[in-house]
Amino acid sequence: MWNLPPSDSVLHVLSLVAVAAQGMTAALAAGRRSMDWLGVCFLGCITALGGGTLRDLFLGHYPLVWVQSPVYLALAGGAAFLTILVARLVHRLKTAFIVLDAIGLVVFTMTGCDIAWQMDASLPIVIVSGMVTGCAGGVLRDVLCNDVPLLFRSELYASVSVVTGLFYATAFGLKLNAELWTILTFVLGISFRLLAVRYKWEMPKFVFTGDEER
Amino acid sequence: MWNLPPSDSVLHVLSLVAVAAQGMTAALAAGRRSMDWLGVCFLGCITALGGGTLRDLFLGHYPLVWVQSPVYLALAGGAAFLTILVARLVHRLKTAFIVLDAIGLVVFTMTGCDIAWQMDASLPIVIVSGMVTGCAGGVLRDVLCNDVPLLFRSELYASVSVVTGLFYATAFGLKLNAELWTILTFVLGISFRLLAVRYKWEMPKFVFTGDEER
Amino acid sequence: MWNLPPSDSVLHVLSLVAVAAQGMTAALAAGRRSMDWLGVCFLGCITALGGGTLRDLFLGHYPLVWVQSPVYLALAGGAAFLTILVARLVHRLKTAFIVLDAIGLVVFTMTGCDIAWQMDASLPIVIVSGMVTGCAGGVLRDVLCNDVPLLFRSELYASVSVVTGLFYATAFGLKLNAELWTILTFVLGISFRLLAVRYKWEMPKFVFTGDEER
Repeated sequence: MWNLPPSDSVLHVLSLVAVAAQGMTAALAAGRRSMDWLGVCFLGCITALGGGTLRDLFLGHYPLVWVQSPVYLALAGGAAFLTILVARLVHRLKTAFIVLDAIGLVVFTMTGCDIAWQMDASLPIVIVSGMVTGCAGGVLRDVLCNDVPLLFRSELYASVSVVTGLFYATAFGLKLNAELWTILTFVLGISFRLLAVRYKWEMPKFVFTGDEER
Repeated sequence: MWNLPPSDSVLHVLSLVAVAAQGMTAALAAGRRSMDWLGVCFLGCITALGGGTLRDLFLGHYPLVWVQSPVYLALAGGAAFLTILVARLVHRLKTAFIVLDAIGLVVFTMTGCDIAWQMDASLPIVIVSGMVTGCAGGVLRDVLCNDVPLLFRSELYASVSVVTGLFYATAFGLKLNAELWTILTFVLGISFRLLAVRYKWEMPKFVFTGDEER
Repeated sequence: MWNLPPSDSVLHVLSLVAVAAQGMTAALAAGRRSMDWLGVCFLGCITALGGGTLRDLFLGHYPLVWVQSPVYLALAGGAAFLTILVARLVHRLKTAFIVLDAIGLVVFTMTGCDIAWQMDASLPIVIVSGMVTGCAGGVLRDVLCNDVPLLFRSELYASVSVVTGLFYATAFGLKLNAELWTILTFVLGISFRLLAVRYKWEMPKFVFTGDEER
């Protein structure tokens, strides 16, 4: 998720922002369940780094990012802890958070695609890798908070990740200018996500009420 | 779970059927929680391929099956999506589904045993590998749907997997005719599961009502 | 968690005790949800061996302990099964269980640190490895029982693991006498945990009641 080449510094900085942002939103979820301070930090780490961890396990991409650079644990856990202190402020900054969370989704997706691509994965796996990196952390957070994952029920989130990944992966296939394409993908992804939140775009739902037998 | 030798074509076709069937039953569970269309497809993939994925992670068996052959993702997700369109029909075909699900359980168990065996695992691990492959997908489905896993509470399911694995693994130990034994195991496993459903065979339950302290 | 050098026999015996103890406490949790007998054994195995399994996956430490020595599966599952028969007794022996559980926490933490250290992990990862080994099994148990993990909400548990790991890892850094330090760490960890239970030491909680938006 984050072991980008040093030259790719914009994406790297954005991914640090994304890790912190996801740690902070996880802290709010933890606070709603009255978790203790250490639990808040754990949930921050699991949410921010869980997607990249699952991707690395699936691809056999060792060492895991946070094992190699434990600073990511400190960043995610520290951001979560900070949130305890500034919870009221964070709450008021809801709009800022929606933007940060969108940055996280898009940046994680792009770095997930990068890593799969570097491992010579096929195109579908590049996109799945982006999606797992972008979305799985939130699923883990919801499972640990004992919820049906929001990902499966709410505004376009995974869809944004899929579209971002498809658009980004096209560049790999077409061997286009990488920097330009990175910026374009970023703008597209963020815009798509923010529009989805603003106008409450949702996927159609599948409602099935057959009796509860297997 | 599915990277069988090409010659073993019956088991291979059955495992494709099993992936689709598990994707479809997962879709019904998703519909009961009003998940959106993409969530339905995800849950289908996680249910149908989660058992094999966990087994591969435990055994260090890389690349994962669906990473190597992403067509399995398309099959599981596609079957889940199709279920949205034909939900009423699927519901009426409940008996067909019970059979398909039983095929999935037995075939996944056998392929799980095969893979562990090819990796020179010991006999207990061969059986555990079959059980994880056959049963873990349903556990993941129930966790993501925010249920206590059915596996732990319902008609014989894991037990069928254990018995199937034991019977199948005996052939490995005795170096019996592989094809004949495959067919015998398949018939035994399916029959056992269908009889368990038909006559509501259940394991005894452990009910403990001590106070809720750790 | 358990592949200690043969000479390290006290820690090895303690870890066997710990596996059994965690299997038994898991069985009580399973009984509260009326799981069937096989479910009880599964939950025992997942609780007792899940932490070590996750650690091994994160570190890429193959083969997994229970794959190499399936006897651990028999021990954890057997202890869980035994608990069904003696549940009333177990309940009365609550104090003994609290001690056994504390032994499990501390011993698993120490062995988790050992393994990360043997793999040349950095100090933060040594401590995280101890914590995952000591605590993650209980988190998996609670997720499968459909609870918000106790770890995040209850008396000092993860904190004991962190302190134990820090203290133990200091010995690695200072190259102190290993045997003496092992004993000291063990006594410190157990005492800390038992005092926390006795006096109901808890971390401060983060309670956040903002509206339920993402």
